[in-house]
Amino acid sequence: MAGARVERGPGRPRHEHVTGAVLSAVLELMTEQGLSAVTMDAVAARAGVSKPAIYRRWPGKHDLILAAAETRIGVLSVPDLGDFRAELRAVLDARLDVYRIPGTARVMAGLIAAVEEDGAVRGAYERYVSRTMGETRKILERGIARGDVRADVDVRAAATLVAAPLVYRLMIEQQVPDARFAADLADMIARAVGSRA
Amino acid sequence: MAGARVERGPGRPRHEHVTGAVLSAVLELMTEQGLSAVTMDAVAARAGVSKPAIYRRWPGKHDLILAAAETRIGVLSVPDLGDFRAELRAVLDARLDVYRIPGTARVMAGLIAAVEEDGAVRGAYERYVSRTMGETRKILERGIARGDVRADVDVRAAATLVAAPLVYRLMIEQQVPDARFAADLADMIARAVGSRA
Repeated sequence: MAGARVERGPGRPRHEHVTGAVLSAVLELMTEQGLSAVTMDAVAARAGVSKPAIYRRWPGKHDLILAAAETRIGVLSVPDLGDFRAELRAVLDARLDVYRIPGTARVMAGLIAAVEEDGAVRGAYERYVSRTMGETRKILERGIARGDVRADVDVRAAATLVAAPLVYRLMIEQQVPDARFAADLADMIARAVGSRA
Repeated sequence: MAGARVERGPGRPRHEHVTGAVLSAVLELMTEQGLSAVTMDAVAARAGVSKPAIYRRWPGKHDLILAAAETRIGVLSVPDLGDFRAELRAVLDARLDVYRIPGTARVMAGLIAAVEEDGAVRGAYERYVSRTMGETRKILERGIARGDVRADVDVRAAATLVAAPLVYRLMIEQQVPDARFAADLADMIARAVGSRA
């Protein structure tokens, strides 16, 4: 590894470049051709890096797919806006932006199929999904503390109610969600958990 | 076809038996081994029928997968119970029963992958999904007419809000939904669309 660094020049920027190139290649292959196209050979060729450079960072194909998915659908951060409904809208709009990127449905379907193929990544997958829903749990808890979310709301169930409809519209109904749908969801979910009618 | 009927004895029951055996074989193969295991040869062998007998009913593998999925997750029928919340609970409980059958997540993931593989079944798939959500649209419309659902609710958006969380918990969070979660959902969704606080 030290040898590779010397050979390739200053380490850090080059490493970050490799990571970005590899994860972009994975997303492109999944979007264009589906999960079966994601082989270490194809990723190395597309990214212009060696297979050992990939294996140094990710132990296998399924870890790579998980890391690539997280660059597309990652962790959100919503500041305290003083109002649950406004923060809910920020979460839904941020997800909407990502789900509207062409190919995101294929990336998500490929991710689910990858977890099914390889039970060894299930734990890492579950932690990833939990991370992606973390900010929603946080705005619900902030709302409970503030008083604009009912104190008896089950935060985990409510976080699923927030996350699910946009994904279902995209993956099950196979239609790209639009801003009107996100606004309807914000309205309905604010009523579902809000302490004010 | 007439010849086959004579050969196999009285037509109708035998035909229904073939249909049932074939669709069960498809569900078993998807549950045990995933989508890639569903080949016409494997289905014929598992069901104990000839490949022509399958092709007479379904033009291809992907039509077969769609038909099999519909025997698992089909159209619901909820009588008028005089109360939207009770009807909503009936819908959620009926779906919960099905999602708790081992293998249903794999059947759904296989179905989505099948539609991705073969764009020709997309129209049939979209009509199927719309049918499965039809009863929820109906109880929402009945609630609007009755007055216990707000008149300004977007019925299609609300139907997605009802359908999505159980599917997301099963397929994305990869956990089997339980009765407590279904009860929490009924409570939250009734607040989301109900005309009474």
